[in-house]
Amino acid sequence: MKSRGLGDIFNPSSIAFVGASQSTEKAGGRRWKTIVDAGFAGKLFPINASASSVYGHRAYPSLRAVGTEVDLVFLAVPTEYVAQAVEDCASVGARGIVVISGGFSEVDEAGRALEKEIVEKASSFGARVFGPNCAGIFSAPAQYNALGWDVPPGTIGLVSQSGNIALDFAEMAQRSRIGFSRYTTIGNAADINTADLIEYYLSDSATRVILAYVEGFGESEGRAIFEMVLRAPVKKPVIILKPGRSETGRRAAMSHTGSLAGEDRLVEVAFRQAGIVRAYDVEEAWATAAAFATTADPSVPGVVVLTDGGGHATLFCDTAGLAGLPVPPLSEKTTEALSALLPARCALGNPIDFAGVAEGEPEIVPKVLDICLSDPSIGTAAIIGHLGGYHKLGGPKLAPREILAAQEIAKVSQTSGRPVHVHSVHANSSLPAIEVLRSEGIPLHRSIEVSARVIANIVRHAMPARHERPDAVSVSCPADAAAIIRAARNGDEAWLQEPEARRLLSAWGISVPPWEVVETLDQCFSAARKFSGPLAMKLISRSLVHKSDVKGVHLNVSPGEACARYEQMIRQAAELSLMSPRVLITPMIEGRAEVVVGAYRDFQFGPVVMVGIGGVLIEVLKDVAFRMAPLSPDDANGMIAELKGSALFSGVRGRAPIPIRPIADLLCRVSEMIAATPDIAEIDINPVIVSESAALIADARVVLAAPAAHEAADGSSDHVGR
Amino acid sequence: MKSRGLGDIFNPSSIAFVGASQSTEKAGGRRWKTIVDAGFAGKLFPINASASSVYGHRAYPSLRAVGTEVDLVFLAVPTEYVAQAVEDCASVGARGIVVISGGFSEVDEAGRALEKEIVEKASSFGARVFGPNCAGIFSAPAQYNALGWDVPPGTIGLVSQSGNIALDFAEMAQRSRIGFSRYTTIGNAADINTADLIEYYLSDSATRVILAYVEGFGESEGRAIFEMVLRAPVKKPVIILKPGRSETGRRAAMSHTGSLAGEDRLVEVAFRQAGIVRAYDVEEAWATAAAFATTADPSVPGVVVLTDGGGHATLFCDTAGLAGLPVPPLSEKTTEALSALLPARCALGNPIDFAGVAEGEPEIVPKVLDICLSDPSIGTAAIIGHLGGYHKLGGPKLAPREILAAQEIAKVSQTSGRPVHVHSVHANSSLPAIEVLRSEGIPLHRSIEVSARVIANIVRHAMPARHERPDAVSVSCPADAAAIIRAARNGDEAWLQEPEARRLLSAWGISVPPWEVVETLDQCFSAARKFSGPLAMKLISRSLVHKSDVKGVHLNVSPGEACARYEQMIRQAAELSLMSPRVLITPMIEGRAEVVVGAYRDFQFGPVVMVGIGGVLIEVLKDVAFRMAPLSPDDANGMIAELKGSALFSGVRGRAPIPIRPIADLLCRVSEMIAATPDIAEIDINPVIVSESAALIADARVVLAAPAAHEAADGSSDHVGR
Repeated sequence: MKSRGLGDIFNPSSIAFVGASQSTEKAGGRRWKTIVDAGFAGKLFPINASASSVYGHRAYPSLRAVGTEVDLVFLAVPTEYVAQAVEDCASVGARGIVVISGGFSEVDEAGRALEKEIVEKASSFGARVFGPNCAGIFSAPAQYNALGWDVPPGTIGLVSQSGNIALDFAEMAQRSRIGFSRYTTIGNAADINTADLIEYYLSDSATRVILAYVEGFGESEGRAIFEMVLRAPVKKPVIILKPGRSETGRRAAMSHTGSLAGEDRLVEVAFRQAGIVRAYDVEEAWATAAAFATTADPSVPGVVVLTDGGGHATLFCDTAGLAGLPVPPLSEKTTEALSALLPARCALGNPIDFAGVAEGEPEIVPKVLDICLSDPSIGTAAIIGHLGGYHKLGGPKLAPREILAAQEIAKVSQTSGRPVHVHSVHANSSLPAIEVLRSEGIPLHRSIEVSARVIANIVRHAMPARHERPDAVSVSCPADAAAIIRAARNGDEAWLQEPEARRLLSAWGISVPPWEVVETLDQCFSAARKFSGPLAMKLISRSLVHKSDVKGVHLNVSPGEACARYEQMIRQAAELSLMSPRVLITPMIEGRAEVVVGAYRDFQFGPVVMVGIGGVLIEVLKDVAFRMAPLSPDDANGMIAELKGSALFSGVRGRAPIPIRPIADLLCRVSEMIAATPDIAEIDINPVIVSESAALIADARVVLAAPAAHEAADGSSDHVGR
Repeated sequence: MKSRGLGDIFNPSSIAFVGASQSTEKAGGRRWKTIVDAGFAGKLFPINASASSVYGHRAYPSLRAVGTEVDLVFLAVPTEYVAQAVEDCASVGARGIVVISGGFSEVDEAGRALEKEIVEKASSFGARVFGPNCAGIFSAPAQYNALGWDVPPGTIGLVSQSGNIALDFAEMAQRSRIGFSRYTTIGNAADINTADLIEYYLSDSATRVILAYVEGFGESEGRAIFEMVLRAPVKKPVIILKPGRSETGRRAAMSHTGSLAGEDRLVEVAFRQAGIVRAYDVEEAWATAAAFATTADPSVPGVVVLTDGGGHATLFCDTAGLAGLPVPPLSEKTTEALSALLPARCALGNPIDFAGVAEGEPEIVPKVLDICLSDPSIGTAAIIGHLGGYHKLGGPKLAPREILAAQEIAKVSQTSGRPVHVHSVHANSSLPAIEVLRSEGIPLHRSIEVSARVIANIVRHAMPARHERPDAVSVSCPADAAAIIRAARNGDEAWLQEPEARRLLSAWGISVPPWEVVETLDQCFSAARKFSGPLAMKLISRSLVHKSDVKGVHLNVSPGEACARYEQMIRQAAELSLMSPRVLITPMIEGRAEVVVGAYRDFQFGPVVMVGIGGVLIEVLKDVAFRMAPLSPDDANGMIAELKGSALFSGVRGRAPIPIRPIADLLCRVSEMIAATPDIAEIDINPVIVSESAALIADARVVLAAPAAHEAADGSSDHVGR
């Protein structure tokens, strides 16, 4: 349990602050002030070498002078004093240490060493460390705020790899009056990292929604988050703002947090598979979290759009379409009810255009809303335009009517149990009707495009496409497969030669075309006799990694020629001084298409599987799809469908379709192999020849993990799942 | 000159308003109020059947009662009175009529007929019509505002196909205190459309920047805008917010304005080629226009990023990378100067991370800015973080220092002549330092991602990549090409048969492989004798559109077989009762790749040229690129480079590269053919066989425009350019 000890940090009974002062110009001073102001109910111990009291609390010259147990200690002292202060934390039995001070791994190697020393020291007496170089923590249930800036309380759990992005969210939270259960910045994350906090939040009863800003994951951290979100017994929305889509951004992340942004397409698929909402900008991240915090999940995906004007409706629908959010037609019953209510000039499709009616008669909005929300294909409503400011155009008499309309809108949403979002040109204002909606927890949007993307995020989270979020899969390694790997390990092999790779695939139940390995001319005679039709012959040797580099592959050899070719290959092997050369003989395979199937172990995300379509599509267009391994059949179908060239399989220009089932089966098995076998670093099956009935393996390569590396990364488990 | 008469509308000496009233609950009432409030210096004539004065101005019972000339008349009366009111406009010699009233083509066919009648009537006495069903007009130089809502004056010319999007921009303008020269909503655009207004704004001295919201273009309107922006003698930034990227959005546009959103990829390339900035959301559109309105063009593309925290820097850089905005390293000289100024903990690369220094010492920001703006690779600066709110953390003593810093930032930007953008968490607030920046015209951004996209838009507009915005090209049709078309027209042909199509291509200087058309066995003998190597033979007849459907194409025919095959083809033609059958004979062509070259006449954008790579790329992936015709060589190279499969030409996996010059030349010629020949509806050259030295045409088809259609669309000009 990596989140061990976080409970004590978020719910301490006592807090000490080393570096507390009265000066808000200092990091320690302004944080001490917000700690005191937030109304923490436990004991507070400001530590200040010279003052006798700080901001109304008796001060102590050092931690050692406190003389009682302290659960949580904040350190805001010069870098050179941090190590001693951590030592002192042992004397008060601290469970958590939050190092605000900077000057560690973000600066140089000496700082990195010091950082490591601090964490080891803390861990020696059982304390967890936040930071160093972090901005602080806020915990709403415990009523403490060690940030130095205001953070409103609420139900969103935040973890941020950047203090300034956290500050940005706090400003948005204040404006929208939706707040945080816990609010953390992890600084250099020398001990406690993003995964630990997400794990804690997932089981934290104070937290309803999880929001994270992540520049990069540590070793296996992406995998850990993927697994915990996928397998969480209580499902909570997890929204992650994750840059790293461009090289410029990846470089900036490296210079900021030293993080490897990672392969962005892996981030994308891992999040999608686990049901993590990926946000693409700060506003979308916040607005999505805020909407999750106050609204119920929609029961069906369709959204109805109620608009003051067609321009906003067009922009909303355009974004909805790009985001995959359906704006379905309304039922006949709904349309009839609407036409009894609205004049002929109003468009009654979806979007519904009020065409000026609402602007003069705001009470029409909740009435129309009520009718629409009982339509069976509608799960969410979006009211868009300039509600709240109608009176700015139509005169002050409208203001109280807008307030009533806002109250009714909230009531209709409440009664129907269906979420209603309001976009308004005035959404950022304090106009009275806007304030009503805000206080009723109706999500308010200033940007029409963000409103559509937020609703799309929520709908997709509540109702993912079938192949997006399949059930978790568990697998274990068959005994004979494990034996093949063990033999290679014992023989100090770095990779499996093709015959062993073929045997390994067979052990996993993957059908491999018939083949023979021959080591003598006599064996070659009997193999050649066994096969009819043209053959492929390949030279095999431990000292030969790339067979084709030395012309070690011969295709379309007739059975009659096989033995002569064998002699020639063995001569060649002798000339190259190859170790224990053998020749693999297998019939040539014909098919309709070639695919490439691969798997590898990613530093951040662990076992990953890949598929691509051979030829120009993979060579020129890098048309490949990835998924976290192991795969369910739905995952496998989904990743094949995601290929740009997948139309090839459904039949192009009148050609017969090619069934994808055999490819999907192969992907599933390969994904299980990599997931269940930490010894495997990489599997490369290229090409796979696909016919109407089968996906036939024509070549395979398995690279073994460096022994030390795989133990560090995966332990010795032979059972992995997702 | 389609913008004829707009000068009178924007700068009238007198205005009448039919439907003026004292009630701001009415469309006419609130618009009359803003007209009067805006301080129009000319004569005002409210028309109201019952009142003797409206809002301080003597009222007239009808237009006819005014008894003097009136330049501009607004109509806000029930639909059924509009036609009469337009008649009455003749009596006052109105130059412009703005129809606020709705109930026309947006409602039904009767409304469409009425709308047409109104425009014809107005045109009979020389008046231009805005609307109907529009929100109104604001003109800053003339000091009138017939919108009914506040619009701040400034230098941005707006044309919007939606009243509500215009309202949205007005709200943003008020917040940012940047305003409009002219502000127009075109409603149903029965007469005056987006193109007319852009044309007017391009030569309007009050307008510095042009902003448009467009759901769809009318016939050739996209082309007209493309041409006028490309050829404008005075370059002004044109920013267009154009939805239509998703099917859901295209449907909504159709239901709102009846507009065909058009092929989105044509919108994309036409804008790019003309140098029009396409915005993808309301906020980006406004922020880009606002920044153009107050800043100078950058002289080099690089941006320097000054940040309070690495998170914002990473997000900025990530978006910059996606948008193609360079964040280059700083020179050694710059870095040295910075390291003398900043402590060691600050990152001095680009981004520069203040790491808390600026928060305690705001005056460091303009100092660092000054150093960076003299770096030769820096054209723009982005200051990002929470400037303006440092005192909220560090205490009130910082507030006046932040104000001074803001003043200095503006001064440094001014002195250096280089634009400085400020992103702040507090950008939407009225904090004093923010107000200073706002009043100094420093672009302020609340969204970090939008700030990066806006700077990218401006940099790309100032410094497009060479192939993005080449010089305008002019062409005219060679006499022999015109003769071929004329002959086909005279023969009532709907398309050119392959021999005529080949002759047409030759007339345009396109090299076509040798070929012969034979109509007798004797001719076939001499043709077969002329060619060596295998031949392609094709049956040609006016009544045979798709040769391959009737197996009319024979490939790889040896010269010896040619005559026998000829006899067989002619027998087949007789069986099919084909009109005047002929056989085309040409040598088989070999090459390294196949491409498809096409051209057609788009309803909105006129002549367009297309290229794709043959085989799986075009069949499965629809990998094609488009450009407005005619092309410059840079355009042609750019469109080939844009193909996903263009790596094929640069050589994949060690294969030799294939020169693109012959393809580019062919594209240029074909683009000239379509541009200069209104009689041509479509050109389809498929396949083009590409070898190391040539792009050889293996088949060609030319479809002629329906005579009526082409005359309506293009007039009879045989000289078209761009």
